[in-house]
Amino acid sequence: MHSLIALLTDFGLDDPYVGQMKAVLARECPDSTVTDLTHGVEPFNIAQGAFFLAASVPHFPEGAVLLAVVDPGVGSGRPILVARQDGRTIVAPDNGLAALALIPEHAELHHVNQLPEKASATFHGRDIFAPIAARIARGEALSGFCHPVSAEETVRPLWTEPLMGRGKCSARVLHVDRFGNCVLNLRAGALGPLHNLQISTPLGRELPAVDTYSDLPEGAPGLLEGSQGFFEIAVNLGSAARQLGLSMGDAVTLRWDA
Amino acid sequence: MHSLIALLTDFGLDDPYVGQMKAVLARECPDSTVTDLTHGVEPFNIAQGAFFLAASVPHFPEGAVLLAVVDPGVGSGRPILVARQDGRTIVAPDNGLAALALIPEHAELHHVNQLPEKASATFHGRDIFAPIAARIARGEALSGFCHPVSAEETVRPLWTEPLMGRGKCSARVLHVDRFGNCVLNLRAGALGPLHNLQISTPLGRELPAVDTYSDLPEGAPGLLEGSQGFFEIAVNLGSAARQLGLSMGDAVTLRWDA
Amino acid sequence: MHSLIALLTDFGLDDPYVGQMKAVLARECPDSTVTDLTHGVEPFNIAQGAFFLAASVPHFPEGAVLLAVVDPGVGSGRPILVARQDGRTIVAPDNGLAALALIPEHAELHHVNQLPEKASATFHGRDIFAPIAARIARGEALSGFCHPVSAEETVRPLWTEPLMGRGKCSARVLHVDRFGNCVLNLRAGALGPLHNLQISTPLGRELPAVDTYSDLPEGAPGLLEGSQGFFEIAVNLGSAARQLGLSMGDAVTLRWDA
Repeated sequence: MHSLIALLTDFGLDDPYVGQMKAVLARECPDSTVTDLTHGVEPFNIAQGAFFLAASVPHFPEGAVLLAVVDPGVGSGRPILVARQDGRTIVAPDNGLAALALIPEHAELHHVNQLPEKASATFHGRDIFAPIAARIARGEALSGFCHPVSAEETVRPLWTEPLMGRGKCSARVLHVDRFGNCVLNLRAGALGPLHNLQISTPLGRELPAVDTYSDLPEGAPGLLEGSQGFFEIAVNLGSAARQLGLSMGDAVTLRWDA
Repeated sequence: MHSLIALLTDFGLDDPYVGQMKAVLARECPDSTVTDLTHGVEPFNIAQGAFFLAASVPHFPEGAVLLAVVDPGVGSGRPILVARQDGRTIVAPDNGLAALALIPEHAELHHVNQLPEKASATFHGRDIFAPIAARIARGEALSGFCHPVSAEETVRPLWTEPLMGRGKCSARVLHVDRFGNCVLNLRAGALGPLHNLQISTPLGRELPAVDTYSDLPEGAPGLLEGSQGFFEIAVNLGSAARQLGLSMGDAVTLRWDA
Repeated sequence: MHSLIALLTDFGLDDPYVGQMKAVLARECPDSTVTDLTHGVEPFNIAQGAFFLAASVPHFPEGAVLLAVVDPGVGSGRPILVARQDGRTIVAPDNGLAALALIPEHAELHHVNQLPEKASATFHGRDIFAPIAARIARGEALSGFCHPVSAEETVRPLWTEPLMGRGKCSARVLHVDRFGNCVLNLRAGALGPLHNLQISTPLGRELPAVDTYSDLPEGAPGLLEGSQGFFEIAVNLGSAARQLGLSMGDAVTLRWDA
């Protein structure tokens, strides 16, 4: 059985940690193809990793195994989540990392109840998560090492949804990309057609909502539904983060005519 | 048909963009092997990407598909180039990115005339370029979605050639590598045997031309025909960029006895 | 014969150098799977690369070829080492890069005596090392291009072992990872059970030895046997390097009741 395993971590690529996970996958599931989603999650930034996973999962083929490790609680005994949705399988610590990618009523949720022996206390990505992903990629039944859980038994942090009010909402910057685009925890399409939608940033700037970059004058900022399935604040051929002083975790307020 | 697809972008590896392109390639051409040329092109720096592509293409096996995306004009309707040369296929925006890799009278040049539907306005790499590369890797005939164009119909920017004069030429720094070597837009062998070749840099330093690093004293700068097929300014066990104050885009002047 | 080739270099991923090595491997051994250990070794830092290799090799499957290139002596005629140990093969410049991964009495050591022609003087990774790794991955007998050497004929730098004294030893920081953990050139288990083990750092701090991160209060530093097979100085949920002012190459002193 040839399968695809995609990796998402906060390990970066300068250390040998990702390479060691790939070594384990090559050893335990030699027939799989291993690919990288990204390893550039800021260390311990679960919300950013959750956005990366949610934005990317729908592009993978059926049968893919997505192994995500952003795990500030390593060694603390937090459960490991295995979730099946639309034919793909996500393996992640149950700390919210998979929360944006999963539709609770849609996904089959499990906790792992049988861990590999001889794991290091500090590197579960290599010693626990990779072997679990390999078992799944080899086609083993989940019932052999997992048990089903309900959505209520899994972690769903506050940042997975914006704070909604009458004619306004408070959203959070989940990610600032290489080009300075600032992604919000607000799904494309979530607001429906709104009148006079405006967004205010911490520096007090009011921005318009537009359809595409090219609707903005060069160097001007605006809000748009980007390619990642979430609203983002962007500057046409410039950096919204720099121009508006936005960083990951910042709150921004959207207002419209109610 | 098993094929090799190599990726070159300015997306970096911290965002999930490259991972999403690989997800699409895995979905649309599961039998291909996907490899990375580099994703470290400076955002929007077409000249640097063009050098990377030109320096690397000859090392790939016949049949390889090279997918290159550095695309400041995304969404502007610039054509997409598909070029066949020596059995390899390059897919890139027609903005000069492939210009250093192609010998116009040697390559078969095409523009794509049939785009995938449902593409995002902002992420053509994933939604347009990757599906095109997958069609090529699957062995589809180019005539199904491309039409031939002449070299004159494709973009060839000024920086693809140095400015030649009598006994001198003005070249441009296309790339500064991790070790501080400064690559010029001047092909190895382009100058033939010259007498008393000297190169002056913006800081006014005159450098000798040498055959290899080891012909230079440790810490001394010089000009040599490097491993990348272009002339480069290098310092033996040091950084030429730092020592000579050179950055990408800078002009340097070569002089010889005419 | 399908084989796995893992790459370790100090080339980084922003330049096209690693991509060109992969192009050569795809051309010369199309049936191999190529994976990355890491390319984030600090330029020319052989000791750091040696640690990466030693920490990672045991996780690879039998038959894997590990190609490691950190090579300040490129072009100087230093020998190329091919070492077989536990069914895996390491290819590296013989400059100490493989020294931490090899147990001299355990490994079969060879020097390469037949180099590819037409190699560039400056990029042996692509033009010499990759073709050698491809020959090995294709299953060619080493006797066709190597001859056996003894451990004494290979390079073993001073930093491969700490300096041992009575009741103390002087160790060296081989690597500081993304999380600020500082790895020492002191193998896990090397000290046996010691009483009152204390470690002093350049800034004069005395640290305790513990079993896992969670034995330390949040933000407190300590010494532990980490996941990489070597002792490391770590801070629970913090950066030991920043807190203790430690960098690669620094010396730290361990003391215990003799």
